[in-house]
Amino acid sequence: MNVGIVGGGQLARMLALAGYPLGWQFQVLDPAADACAGQVARFIQGDYHDETPLMALAAWADVVTFDFENVPAEAARILGQRVAVYPPAEALAVAQDRLDEKTLFWELGIPIPTFATVDSLEELQSAVRRLELPTVLKTRRLGYDGKGQRVLRTDRDIEAAWQALGSVPLILEKFVPFEHEVSILAVRDREGGTVFYPLVENHHRDGILRLSQAPCRKPELEQEGWDYARRLLERLNHVGVLAIEFFVKDGRLIANEMAPRVHNSGHWTIEGAETCQFENHLRAILGLPLGSTAAVGHSAMVNAIGDLPERSAVLSLPGAHYHAYGKTPRPGRKVGHVTLRADDPGMVSAGLERLLPMVGFRPDEFG
Amino acid sequence: MNVGIVGGGQLARMLALAGYPLGWQFQVLDPAADACAGQVARFIQGDYHDETPLMALAAWADVVTFDFENVPAEAARILGQRVAVYPPAEALAVAQDRLDEKTLFWELGIPIPTFATVDSLEELQSAVRRLELPTVLKTRRLGYDGKGQRVLRTDRDIEAAWQALGSVPLILEKFVPFEHEVSILAVRDREGGTVFYPLVENHHRDGILRLSQAPCRKPELEQEGWDYARRLLERLNHVGVLAIEFFVKDGRLIANEMAPRVHNSGHWTIEGAETCQFENHLRAILGLPLGSTAAVGHSAMVNAIGDLPERSAVLSLPGAHYHAYGKTPRPGRKVGHVTLRADDPGMVSAGLERLLPMVGFRPDEFG
Repeated sequence: MNVGIVGGGQLARMLALAGYPLGWQFQVLDPAADACAGQVARFIQGDYHDETPLMALAAWADVVTFDFENVPAEAARILGQRVAVYPPAEALAVAQDRLDEKTLFWELGIPIPTFATVDSLEELQSAVRRLELPTVLKTRRLGYDGKGQRVLRTDRDIEAAWQALGSVPLILEKFVPFEHEVSILAVRDREGGTVFYPLVENHHRDGILRLSQAPCRKPELEQEGWDYARRLLERLNHVGVLAIEFFVKDGRLIANEMAPRVHNSGHWTIEGAETCQFENHLRAILGLPLGSTAAVGHSAMVNAIGDLPERSAVLSLPGAHYHAYGKTPRPGRKVGHVTLRADDPGMVSAGLERLLPMVGFRPDEFG
Repeated sequence: MNVGIVGGGQLARMLALAGYPLGWQFQVLDPAADACAGQVARFIQGDYHDETPLMALAAWADVVTFDFENVPAEAARILGQRVAVYPPAEALAVAQDRLDEKTLFWELGIPIPTFATVDSLEELQSAVRRLELPTVLKTRRLGYDGKGQRVLRTDRDIEAAWQALGSVPLILEKFVPFEHEVSILAVRDREGGTVFYPLVENHHRDGILRLSQAPCRKPELEQEGWDYARRLLERLNHVGVLAIEFFVKDGRLIANEMAPRVHNSGHWTIEGAETCQFENHLRAILGLPLGSTAAVGHSAMVNAIGDLPERSAVLSLPGAHYHAYGKTPRPGRKVGHVTLRADDPGMVSAGLERLLPMVGFRPDEFG
């Protein structure tokens, strides 16, 4: 089978690497000449708005998927006329707009922060009065890794935030003083079968995920998260992996956002789960039985942001697995990750204390 | 780092797939246009006796290794003048000739079957009288997967075996009525550090490996095997993975043969060990710390010979991991393998009963 992927970043790269053992071929489409998945897969350099490369990918592939959700709707439509495309267009569309996403969460009974849409400075000021500070102003579209967001703590932040973001439709959310952040990774196959990975605990800095730990032993939250994920999977008629990020406050989940794709907080599954998220996404879109999502021991995944840690130092840590994405180092850029896996959670914690300083944090930074 | 591999079969393919996560690039050299590693790595089609493709590989690579041991000595010499080459030429040379191999085993105190060299029918007849039937006649060079071998059970087999194999130098071995076959996979790094994988129990049919199970809980044999492996690694100044196959008779190991490379009986390590044999081979030749060889639960690896089993059926087995090599099906050809991994050995056994019929065996074939 030939699998086409729109987007050629690290997610596409890890999809290809997970799929080769099953005998499949991969081709990625990306506008950037140095798209890192192009190092390990066939590569079409082209714009997502240009029909020619999309047609070339559709002609070659038996099935097409995405490594990001902000695919132009027209691109998905062009592909969908010629080849099987997963996830479905609606899942992409909902994930592209925070208002649609929140509306869907609300319809499905998934708790969300109070919010208001904002299209003018006046609306922003009135929404701030209604929600009360602190709040978070976010662009409705094209936000990721903390981009397109401003936290409003005092009245003086209002106008600056409007100046920075006000050229596009916005949403204002009540800031959630959360105790933890967690995520759920769920997979649905073409026949409607579903599997769910153990709950993951996440830590961000500057809007970027830094550390994920799994399995996060909070059975009640896990069941609640799986239940919300099931509602979304079924409502969207989703096929493939779906990730949902939650805040935890007062022992309850509050949904932050979803991604209809493999997700950074699931990278630990490569070594830490019986079947990794990348393989299960491929199994789902290719109509094969989903694999076990059971954790194999305990895992901690640390992102390498901006630059890679030194290989020898990392590989001397027991249970360390090094993942370099083949990307040019640049401040703020995700260029790799390291997963620590061990049967004993104490070994993971001990390794983490040594690993965190290698990627620019204190040993107890997320303790 | 750029890693060149002489030979583009499934071992090269799995080396590349294990190495991409570490950010390395791979290029393989193989005479066959459809060499299966060429589907996942840069590819030079060329003859091992032709200097031009060898020079091209050496010019591109930071280090060169092999996916088979029968590399022409001249090819290794040409490469070695221009680029770091591992394993060392002596390890390749010894593994290419059963007489050299047995002589080395004998020198190092590693038990071997009684044997005699044979260069004429008269020598064969006299050797058979000395060793007594049953015996095994083998070509000294270029044997693999049972090719170049004949078992001699009665006097009538002698002349037929000579007719089949007698055009090249031969060796006659006393047939070992073994209870089990096992193998040891060992790794040595460039500084002389060594690690050893758990003992593997192997089952062959028609000279081809069919089933490997690990870890094989026979502590005394494991220590003995590691000791022999250590002697070989040090004597050869080996760098990379070295595999040794043994017969087990009366509770002792008798060495059958060695391979100075990653080995079929180590494929289970992809899912079943903390660091797989492919990654550890690469870590060794690239001067990085070796990874833990500890087993993660229990594993059984089954080869797919001639044709691949049905994907859906295999993937519905708990803990099954499917590996297709991208090779055209052909009788007797290794086209893939399946590994069953679970924390509970009973789950592996139960899965094996269902898996074996999918690759043409009875459920209790190797019980």
